[in-house]
Amino acid sequence: MSSAIPFADPATQKRADESAVFAPKFDKNGLITAVVCDHETNEVLMVAYMSEDSLRKTLEIGEAVFYSRSRQELWHKGQTSGNTQTVKEILVDCDQDCLVLKVVQNGGAACHTGRRSCFYRSVPFGDAAKAHEGADAMPVAEIDSNKLFDPDKVYGEK
Amino acid sequence: MSSAIPFADPATQKRADESAVFAPKFDKNGLITAVVCDHETNEVLMVAYMSEDSLRKTLEIGEAVFYSRSRQELWHKGQTSGNTQTVKEILVDCDQDCLVLKVVQNGGAACHTGRRSCFYRSVPFGDAAKAHEGADAMPVAEIDSNKLFDPDKVYGEK
Repeated sequence: MSSAIPFADPATQKRADESAVFAPKFDKNGLITAVVCDHETNEVLMVAYMSEDSLRKTLEIGEAVFYSRSRQELWHKGQTSGNTQTVKEILVDCDQDCLVLKVVQNGGAACHTGRRSCFYRSVPFGDAAKAHEGADAMPVAEIDSNKLFDPDKVYGEK
Repeated sequence: MSSAIPFADPATQKRADESAVFAPKFDKNGLITAVVCDHETNEVLMVAYMSEDSLRKTLEIGEAVFYSRSRQELWHKGQTSGNTQTVKEILVDCDQDCLVLKVVQNGGAACHTGRRSCFYRSVPFGDAAKAHEGADAMPVAEIDSNKLFDPDKVYGEK
């Protein structure tokens, strides 16, 4: 693909953390982690994975395209729900094996449950966690119950 | 470990996205992804991985403890550099296979390069990426060159 957006081979970079070229490191499954944040508030909306093809597609069209590990196919986020993500900025980390996408979340909801963010439950820690030592399970607290769409209507009943 | 902080078995939860108990899903390597954010600004500081042991340790002590995939051992962040992360909030996502840790980054720098965040380079996309089609590589832009510590002094020369 001589006309493709180029990714440098990480093996050609002496140090990923000082490299001035984009040399994304895909794991042994061919995937790189992508953290999606609201471009204004920085709130983490979701975490997903990109294959080389889906990353290249994201860079080309400026909308988030992931690789669905469960369906094993390219996943243009929002094609079903309409809730696409318009990319405003892409950052890469020191060892170039993780990306941050700052986006406009169209429709407001990133999560398949209809919530703004997939991170709508908090986990106890410290004394609040230790209080459950020896129990079978520990509760999580729902911090956002506001569903911006009805997932049954958008995706069909489960 | 009957006195340990309990994790429910994901297999016992009918739907991870509606579960009211903490049932973290570790991947086939026994790891779960953890996105670390500044608790005040939400800025993503780093992304790392936790084993069951490191997650339990994090919940117990309220400081971020990861699993180092390269060193294959527990990694209490900041033990070498002094830059520990005090946990203020932990969130889990809809399918309970990813965590967000909101932290106070002690010392100010999360990255081993001395920078505040590991995400200090931006990646071109859209027309800016297409301009490099057919080239061998595409440049990344350094958006934060401010090193809060000298990595050679903290970790020794590389």
